[in-house]
Amino acid sequence: MPIRLALLLLCCSLPVGAQTSSLLPVPASLRPGTGRMVIDSTTNFAVTAFSDSRLEQALDRFRGRLARRIGQPVSRSVSRTATPRSIAIDVSGRGMAVQGVEEVERYTLAISPEGATLQAATVVGALRGLETLLQLVEGDGTTFSLPALSIADEPRFPWRGLLVDVSRHFMPVEQLKRTLDAMALVKLNVFHWHLSDDQGFRVESKRFPRLHELGSDGLYYTQDQVRDVVRYARDRGIRVVPEFDIPGHSTAWFVGYPQFSAQSPPIAIRREWGGADAIFDPTREATYVFLARFIAEMVPLFPDAYWHVGGDEVEGKHWNSVPRIVAWRKRHGFKDNEALQAHFNRRLSVILARHNKRMVGWDEILYPDLPKKTVVQSWRGTQYLANSAKQGFSALLSAPWYLDHIKPATDYYTVEPVPQFDELTPAQQELVLGGEAAIWAEFITAECADSRIWPRLGAVAERLWSPREVTDVADMYRRLEILTDRLEGMGLRVRSHSRRMLATIAPGLDVAPVESLFTAVQPPGFGQWSNGQGTNHFHPLARLVDAARPDPAGRWATERLVRRLALNASDAAARDTLLQLFEGWSLLLPRIERLATQSPTLAQALPVAKVLARTAVIGTEALGFLSAGRQPPADWAAASAQELQRYDEPQGTLRVAISSDVRKLLAMATGGAPAGRSP
Amino acid sequence: MPIRLALLLLCCSLPVGAQTSSLLPVPASLRPGTGRMVIDSTTNFAVTAFSDSRLEQALDRFRGRLARRIGQPVSRSVSRTATPRSIAIDVSGRGMAVQGVEEVERYTLAISPEGATLQAATVVGALRGLETLLQLVEGDGTTFSLPALSIADEPRFPWRGLLVDVSRHFMPVEQLKRTLDAMALVKLNVFHWHLSDDQGFRVESKRFPRLHELGSDGLYYTQDQVRDVVRYARDRGIRVVPEFDIPGHSTAWFVGYPQFSAQSPPIAIRREWGGADAIFDPTREATYVFLARFIAEMVPLFPDAYWHVGGDEVEGKHWNSVPRIVAWRKRHGFKDNEALQAHFNRRLSVILARHNKRMVGWDEILYPDLPKKTVVQSWRGTQYLANSAKQGFSALLSAPWYLDHIKPATDYYTVEPVPQFDELTPAQQELVLGGEAAIWAEFITAECADSRIWPRLGAVAERLWSPREVTDVADMYRRLEILTDRLEGMGLRVRSHSRRMLATIAPGLDVAPVESLFTAVQPPGFGQWSNGQGTNHFHPLARLVDAARPDPAGRWATERLVRRLALNASDAAARDTLLQLFEGWSLLLPRIERLATQSPTLAQALPVAKVLARTAVIGTEALGFLSAGRQPPADWAAASAQELQRYDEPQGTLRVAISSDVRKLLAMATGGAPAGRSP
Repeated sequence: MPIRLALLLLCCSLPVGAQTSSLLPVPASLRPGTGRMVIDSTTNFAVTAFSDSRLEQALDRFRGRLARRIGQPVSRSVSRTATPRSIAIDVSGRGMAVQGVEEVERYTLAISPEGATLQAATVVGALRGLETLLQLVEGDGTTFSLPALSIADEPRFPWRGLLVDVSRHFMPVEQLKRTLDAMALVKLNVFHWHLSDDQGFRVESKRFPRLHELGSDGLYYTQDQVRDVVRYARDRGIRVVPEFDIPGHSTAWFVGYPQFSAQSPPIAIRREWGGADAIFDPTREATYVFLARFIAEMVPLFPDAYWHVGGDEVEGKHWNSVPRIVAWRKRHGFKDNEALQAHFNRRLSVILARHNKRMVGWDEILYPDLPKKTVVQSWRGTQYLANSAKQGFSALLSAPWYLDHIKPATDYYTVEPVPQFDELTPAQQELVLGGEAAIWAEFITAECADSRIWPRLGAVAERLWSPREVTDVADMYRRLEILTDRLEGMGLRVRSHSRRMLATIAPGLDVAPVESLFTAVQPPGFGQWSNGQGTNHFHPLARLVDAARPDPAGRWATERLVRRLALNASDAAARDTLLQLFEGWSLLLPRIERLATQSPTLAQALPVAKVLARTAVIGTEALGFLSAGRQPPADWAAASAQELQRYDEPQGTLRVAISSDVRKLLAMATGGAPAGRSP
Repeated sequence: MPIRLALLLLCCSLPVGAQTSSLLPVPASLRPGTGRMVIDSTTNFAVTAFSDSRLEQALDRFRGRLARRIGQPVSRSVSRTATPRSIAIDVSGRGMAVQGVEEVERYTLAISPEGATLQAATVVGALRGLETLLQLVEGDGTTFSLPALSIADEPRFPWRGLLVDVSRHFMPVEQLKRTLDAMALVKLNVFHWHLSDDQGFRVESKRFPRLHELGSDGLYYTQDQVRDVVRYARDRGIRVVPEFDIPGHSTAWFVGYPQFSAQSPPIAIRREWGGADAIFDPTREATYVFLARFIAEMVPLFPDAYWHVGGDEVEGKHWNSVPRIVAWRKRHGFKDNEALQAHFNRRLSVILARHNKRMVGWDEILYPDLPKKTVVQSWRGTQYLANSAKQGFSALLSAPWYLDHIKPATDYYTVEPVPQFDELTPAQQELVLGGEAAIWAEFITAECADSRIWPRLGAVAERLWSPREVTDVADMYRRLEILTDRLEGMGLRVRSHSRRMLATIAPGLDVAPVESLFTAVQPPGFGQWSNGQGTNHFHPLARLVDAARPDPAGRWATERLVRRLALNASDAAARDTLLQLFEGWSLLLPRIERLATQSPTLAQALPVAKVLARTAVIGTEALGFLSAGRQPPADWAAASAQELQRYDEPQGTLRVAISSDVRKLLAMATGGAPAGRSP
C-alpha cells in the first residue's frame, strides 16, 4: 500500500528523545536542562502550598493519566512537602471564584533529575502546567522520564474558545465532556455553548417549559445536566459562555411561544438548513418581560460574567412585512431595521446588566451607541474585528476559524488575530481578547464531531496561546499527529471515526481502497455543500462524505513536496515521492469502481475517484515536464489548468483536496513559478 | 505490508449478493426466493396486529438503524395495514409479562419484491426477526434491497447468555448498554450480571448502605441505574439474572458487615486476584436474616424468575479454623463442608422461594437433596453439565465458554452442549437449558471489554441458537468479520481497540510493526497469566498485552492453510501464502527492536517478537522440507518440535498464537501427518 506507507514516512517520524518538541501549544519560553527525571511507580507527589478540591481532583486525574501513560500504577499518596524525585505542585491560591477573562493562567515548570516543581499563582495555572507535564513524558527502552528543563509559560490571549452548535444536531453530555477534556489538553479556556437556533432549543426551562418540550424533539439538557457540564468545565479551567441566539435564528422558541414572534403562528421547528426568517417582535413590551424572566431563570445555571445574545443574520422580512411593526419603528424614529435591532440589544443590555452580565454578540450587533462593555464576536472576518476594536469594543475573532468550513489546518494556523496592517493602536490591540473556533452542526453529529473538530482545533489553540512568532506549519502538522494519538488514547474518534463510519456503511466489504481515497479527498466546505446536498434535519449522516476526513494527510504531503520542488526543481526525493503518491491515487479508480457495484453509498466515491485520478495524471505529467526541464505545450497546459480549476468544486458530496497544489505544480512546469523561487 | 494484505485476501472476501450468507446466527431454515425488494426512503412500515410501546420503540430503533445502513432518511410514519413494498410486522401478542425461559422467540420472514412480512407470536420473536431483517440488507451499484426469501427461525436453546463480571473491574452503565445492544444483534437473551465478588460490591443497598459505601470504592450502580439496565435489556428481549456470589467470593460484603463473616474483622476489599478465603458464617441465624432482608430489598429490582447465588470455589478455611463453626457443623450432623454448604443453599432456596425465585448456582451447589427446581451452571466442563442433568437438575453450560481464557473462536464454536457420548435420555437432554459465555474481569476493563468479548461471543451465540448441524468453522470466521464491522459501526471497540490502546501507550510513534505483530500474537489465557503478571486492582491496564487482540487473524489463517496442506501437500497457493506470512512475521523483529528503544511499554513486545520470528523460521524450513518431499534431519525435527512446544507458554505477558499450527506443519514434514490425511 504505497500511499499510506509514503504518507507515514512523511508525517509520523518523531526522533527519539524529542518529546519537548511534541508540546502543543508551544510554551512561551523553554530552556533545556541536563539529564532527566525518572518516572515510575515510586515517583512521589506533593502539593506544597495552597490546595482545594479542584486541585486535588485535577491531581487525581493527572495521576490516573500518568499511570496509563507509563502502564504502571503510580503512588497512591500525596504529601505536603516535596521529597526527592517527587512531582511537587506549588500553587499560591484559588484564583477567581468564578473564572473570568482576568484569571491568571501562567505557570512555571522546573524539572531536574532530582525532581519536578510546578508553580502557579492559581489553580487554573496549575491545570495548564499539569497538561504540559503529561506531554513531556518520554521513554527509552527501559524507563519513562521527564527531560530536565525549565518552562515559563503564559497565554498570549485570555479568551481561547470553541463554539459548539448543539441546535442543528444535538450533542449528548458525554460528547461535550470529551470535547472539554480535549480542550483542556491544548489549554483552551472557553466553551461557547450555542444552545438555541432555528432547529432546536436545547435547555430545560421550568418557567417556560414549552421551550424545550416543543422546541427540541425531546433532545435537550436538563438543568442538572447544564450544572454538571458547567462544573466539569470549571474543573478543567474552562469557562462556559451560553448563547441563546436572538432576535433571529429563533424559530425553535416560537413553537411553544409564538406570541413573541413577529410572525403569525403556527410555527414549527425548522427542518431545513440556513435562511430562516423567524424573529422576535421587538416592539412589544411583553417580549422583553418574557426574555427578562427567561434570562433570570437561566442566570444561576451559567455563572460566567459574559452572556452571548447571538444577534447574527437578522432577517428583516417580518419586521418589514408586519404593518404594525413598521409603523412602530417609524413612530419611534428608528431609521431602519439595523437601528431597530440596536434598540432590541440596548434593552437586552439593560436586562443583562441587572445580572452583572456583559453582553457578547456577533458582528451585526455592532452599533455606535451600544454600551462599551459589549463584546463583538466577528464571524465575517478579521477586518470586522479591527472595526470593533477601533470603535472601542472588546472583540473576539471567529470567522476564519469555522471548523465546519473544512479548511486545512494551515489555513486556521496562519490566521493572525492582530494583523499589523490593521494599524490598531496598542490600546485597541488590547481590546482583542482572543477568539473562538466554531463547529456549526448542520452536517455534524455527535458521531463525527471529534473528527471534524480535531486535530485542527489544536492549530487554533496554539495560535491563541503561543507567541506570535510560532508559525512553523510543518512542525504544527507533525505535532497535530501526536495530538491525534493523545486524543485517540483518551477515547475520542479523531482518526478512527472514518473506519467506524465505513463499517456502518459497508459491513463485510473490504473498504481499503476508500480509505486510500480518503488520503486525498475530503468533505467540501460548508458553502460548497450546504446548497448541493439537499439534506435536512431528518437525514442520517451516514453517507460517504460523513466518513471522509477533513484536511487529509495527502493534501499536506502534496503541498509540502510541491513547496520543496518550488525551492529546488531537481529535488529528486520530493519528485519521486510525489510520483509515488500520484500513481497510488490514479490506480485507485478501478478498485473503487469494483466496490461501487456493491453499495450505493460506496458508489458516491466514483465521481471524485475519477477526478482524483485525472488530477494525479496531470500532476504526473507536470512533474515529467518539470524534471525534463521542458515546457509543456501551451494548449495542454491551459486545458489542464482549467480542468484542475473545476476540481476545486465538489464532485457530488466529496472534493479532491490536492487540486490547488497540483495547479501550483503545473504553473511551475509552465514557468509560472520557476525553480528556485517560491510559488 | 504483506501480512495484512495476505490476511485481508484470506478473510474478507464476500461475494456480491451473498448477504443471506452473512446471517449470524444462521436461521433454523431459509428458502431463497426470486428477485428482491428495494429498500429506500419510500419504503413503508406497518404494524398490522398487536402493538405495544416495546414493539414501537423497537421499530423506531430499527428504522433509525436502517436509515444509517442505507444512508438515507426512512419513512417517518408507521401504518396499521401492509401496503405495497412495505415492511409489515405481524405480532400476535405481548408475550410473557416478565420474559422467561418459556418465552416464544420464533418468527418467520417472508420477503418478495412486493413486500416483507415479519410474523411472530410475541414481541420478543419480532425483535429477533428485526435483527435478521437488518442483516439481510444488501446493495449493488444503485440500490439497497432485501433478497426474496422465506425464513422460519427459532432458537435451539431457550437460555443463551453472557455473564459480565463487574466486580473485579467496574463496568459503567454505558458499557453494559452497548454490550446489550450487541447481544441483541446475535439473538442472545440472558444478561448474567455478576454483581459482587471479593473485589467489589456493585449495587446500592438502601437497607445495608455499607455494602456499596465501603465495598465498592464508590464504583457501584444506583438502584435507578439497575432499573434502567433491566428495562434496557427487556426492551431488547434480554433477561437480566443477577448474581450475588455467596457464601464464598464475598470479601466485599464484609468490609461493611463483618459480623456475618466466619472470619474476624477488619476485612478490606481484596486487591489481589483469585483465592480469597472470606466466607459467610452459615451457622448463625443472623446471617440468614441479613441475607433474607437483603434479597427482599433486591427482588423488586430484578424481576427475572431466576436468582443466581454463586456458590463456587467455597474455601473451607474459616469453616475449618473457627472451633465454634466446626462444633456446630458436627452437632448438626453435617459430615463435611460440602454438606454445610448444601445446608446454606437449602436455607437460601427457602428464602428465594418466598419471592418465587428459582435458584441458580455454580457446579459446587450440586447436592442430592437440593430442590429439583435448582439450576446448576457448569464452570468445570461439559461432564459436570451431564452430571447435573442425570441427577435431574436443569443445567447451563459455561465452562468452555470463558472468553477471558482468550481461546480462539474455533474452540468456543465447536463445543457441543449436549454431546452424544454423554448418553443422556431425551428427558435429561431437555434439562440442558442452554448456556452462557462469561467475561471475568481480572484483566479486563470497560476500555477493552468490547475487544475481549467480541466477535468471539458471536460463535457462542450461534452455537446456542442455530441447529446442531451448523458447524462450518471457516464460514463462522468469515461471518465473524462481518459481525465485527456491524459492531464497530454501532460504536463498539472490537477491532479498533488495539489502535486506541497503542495510541495511549505510544503517542507519536509509528506502531505499525506492533499492529503486524498483533496478527500472530495474543494475550495469554487466564490460567497462564493470572500467576505470571503480578498485577492487582490498582494496575492500569494499559500495557502492551492490553492492546493485543484475542484470536488474531494470522492464527486462523495459519490453521486454515496448514489444513489445506494436510489435505494436499502440493497445494502451491497455500504454501506460498504461508511462506509470505512467515516471512512477514520474521522480518518484524528488527522493526520491533527499533521501537523497543523508544518506550518501555513497547519493549514488552521484544521477547514474543523473537519467539514469533523463530516460529516463523521453523515453519519456513518445515515448508521447505514438505514441498521438496524430503525428510528433515531427525535431530533438527525433534529440537524444533521441542522449541515450538515451549512457545505455547507466554513470553512475558504475550503469547505466540501460531505455535501449535506450526507444530502440525512440522509433524507433517516429518511424516507425522503425511499429505492426503488430516493431521
